[in-house]
Amino acid sequence: MADQYAYSGDDKRPTEIPAIRWEEPPEGPVLVLLDQTRLPVEEVELVCTDAPALVEAIRSLAVRGAPLLGIAGAYGVALAAVRGFDVEEAAAALASARPTAVNLAVGVRRAQAAHEAALAKGGDIRQAAAAALAAARQLHREDAEASARMAEHGLALLDELLPGGGHRILTHCNTGSLVSGGEGTAFAVALAAHRAGRLRRLWVDETRPLLQGARLTAYEAARSGMAYTLLTDNAAGSLFAAGEVDAVLIGADRITADGSVANKIGSYPLAVLARYHHVPFIVVAPVTTVDADTPDGASIEVEQRAGHEVTEFVAPQVPVTGAEAGGGIPVAPLGTQAYNPAFDVTPPELVTAIVTEEGAVSPVTAEALAEVCARSRRVSAG
Amino acid sequence: MADQYAYSGDDKRPTEIPAIRWEEPPEGPVLVLLDQTRLPVEEVELVCTDAPALVEAIRSLAVRGAPLLGIAGAYGVALAAVRGFDVEEAAAALASARPTAVNLAVGVRRAQAAHEAALAKGGDIRQAAAAALAAARQLHREDAEASARMAEHGLALLDELLPGGGHRILTHCNTGSLVSGGEGTAFAVALAAHRAGRLRRLWVDETRPLLQGARLTAYEAARSGMAYTLLTDNAAGSLFAAGEVDAVLIGADRITADGSVANKIGSYPLAVLARYHHVPFIVVAPVTTVDADTPDGASIEVEQRAGHEVTEFVAPQVPVTGAEAGGGIPVAPLGTQAYNPAFDVTPPELVTAIVTEEGAVSPVTAEALAEVCARSRRVSAG
Repeated sequence: MADQYAYSGDDKRPTEIPAIRWEEPPEGPVLVLLDQTRLPVEEVELVCTDAPALVEAIRSLAVRGAPLLGIAGAYGVALAAVRGFDVEEAAAALASARPTAVNLAVGVRRAQAAHEAALAKGGDIRQAAAAALAAARQLHREDAEASARMAEHGLALLDELLPGGGHRILTHCNTGSLVSGGEGTAFAVALAAHRAGRLRRLWVDETRPLLQGARLTAYEAARSGMAYTLLTDNAAGSLFAAGEVDAVLIGADRITADGSVANKIGSYPLAVLARYHHVPFIVVAPVTTVDADTPDGASIEVEQRAGHEVTEFVAPQVPVTGAEAGGGIPVAPLGTQAYNPAFDVTPPELVTAIVTEEGAVSPVTAEALAEVCARSRRVSAG
Repeated sequence: MADQYAYSGDDKRPTEIPAIRWEEPPEGPVLVLLDQTRLPVEEVELVCTDAPALVEAIRSLAVRGAPLLGIAGAYGVALAAVRGFDVEEAAAALASARPTAVNLAVGVRRAQAAHEAALAKGGDIRQAAAAALAAARQLHREDAEASARMAEHGLALLDELLPGGGHRILTHCNTGSLVSGGEGTAFAVALAAHRAGRLRRLWVDETRPLLQGARLTAYEAARSGMAYTLLTDNAAGSLFAAGEVDAVLIGADRITADGSVANKIGSYPLAVLARYHHVPFIVVAPVTTVDADTPDGASIEVEQRAGHEVTEFVAPQVPVTGAEAGGGIPVAPLGTQAYNPAFDVTPPELVTAIVTEEGAVSPVTAEALAEVCARSRRVSAG
């Protein structure tokens, strides 16, 4: 089951509530999540004491974002193990909570494998649970470390491309600590620039239709004390034309072998604008995002999402389930058909650089990408 | 005062409710407006029996769109005259109902001038009122005729540029009969293609932040029986990349002497995408839109609108007043600053053609634009 902690304007309000944390109060271990469906209106934490509560939190998008889902899944397995529930059952339920989220299943499997290995080595239930928790913590730590390294490499690249400092960065969608065990991908680079005193402004695309930019990135920028300004996605063109954008920083859902970047819908028009205005377009993503089995952008099947995300408005407090029902306020005539692709594909020739935890790839070629992936495998094996 | 007529799903529901009409029921003449703040949720007509009711309708955006405001202003003066109110007082109130709408003041002045001229020629109050009404009707007719001629020239251009037919047209904002005495500008061209059986699909940009595309253009497309699909503004890039857009058709708020086009925010990125994908980018606007006194795009001061249009969501039923208060549902953290320019500027080199009622200008040069404006003056003088 899940309890809720609400933070309101008292003195003990933390300046930064982590998206996920493992706690061990006297009543027993819990997994505490920042409920992302309530942002930016309220900061409410969901306290999960078992896997079914976490499954529900994943389904309702209280916790979301590929890397964070993997970490949540791993902790969910550990939670079931530590509290003496059926680990196999919990793992199955968690892994299928959102069928398309590959990181979720990978994270679940990792904690489950550690649990099984400990038992196979003759460990008792307590030791196996400890092994599952250690695996979850290790995944969490690795993701945080990858974020930190991406931030470092990204900032070095920015400083190289824009030696003047005072960077004005445009970003799209949400790529910060709300989707990561650390500080994220593209957002982590902007945050590093901010901490180094070299971020003049973060331009935040609102990111229609689900407004992750307005709801989540603006929230992250505000709590980090960054100078940020929100804009409608279609206003980015004016900023480029006025010379107000020094670089674009985005994340990636998937990068194909040739360096094509699938990312949130609206990324590709920014790449075209950036090219037209001679502004660097930089993708920040961990090596695990590279899908070597998909040769190029044309081979990616683009997910079409429900039209009601466009034809209706859903208030932030109401979870967007993405299920059959809309339930929002109509903003278009009844029966209006909508074209609502989840992401678009930017070809490698429009990408200035891909920044990974193993370094930046620039220019983006299949060979250079393969090299950075091989480097990552060597590091993992070493 | 204003009454309301609501149309609900009964058999007498008209298939097309005009944005504005003058009626003379036994109780006396009235100006009937389709209340655009209620679209697309409800079709409600506002019945104005005096100028103050019309001023309120203009202020609340129940009636909007530059050409339509001019027509409404002229009818408002006629209404005051016919019903025996103080014409000068009504004209002053109407002309200043929205200070930036130049067409409004021009329309008001035209009916007022006709009224004064009739009195000066020794006509009585009744004859002067008839003159004011005739002037309003003339303006209404001229605007409708200009629409029809733009549609004709625009369709001829489309057929020339895209000889295969089966046009897939992308449009932005709202440019149809809701902003015009006729069928509008860019939308009128798409409608002509539809009637000629040569429109395969109208792609409708939702047009953030105020969603005129979703609320109004989708409504106009639906009631015209066009095949249309709504999309978020940031999804247009994917359509271009997939080869699904044959031409872009937009209107214009102002065209400078060199052919720079100021239009609703989001137009410029479409022009850049169209150029990158070798797709014609066509602007449709009456000759009166050309502002020969402004030399170029850089000389245009871009109006910055209130941030709450971006940081809050306002349901269609609630009038968007654009005034100090937001009153919507927050979609960004409190205190978030927004960059919210009303329009952007597309330079002439990105515009394939400007279609006016006097013909198409292509390529767009200062000389060709001046020529078409001179032709218009010759026609008016003739």
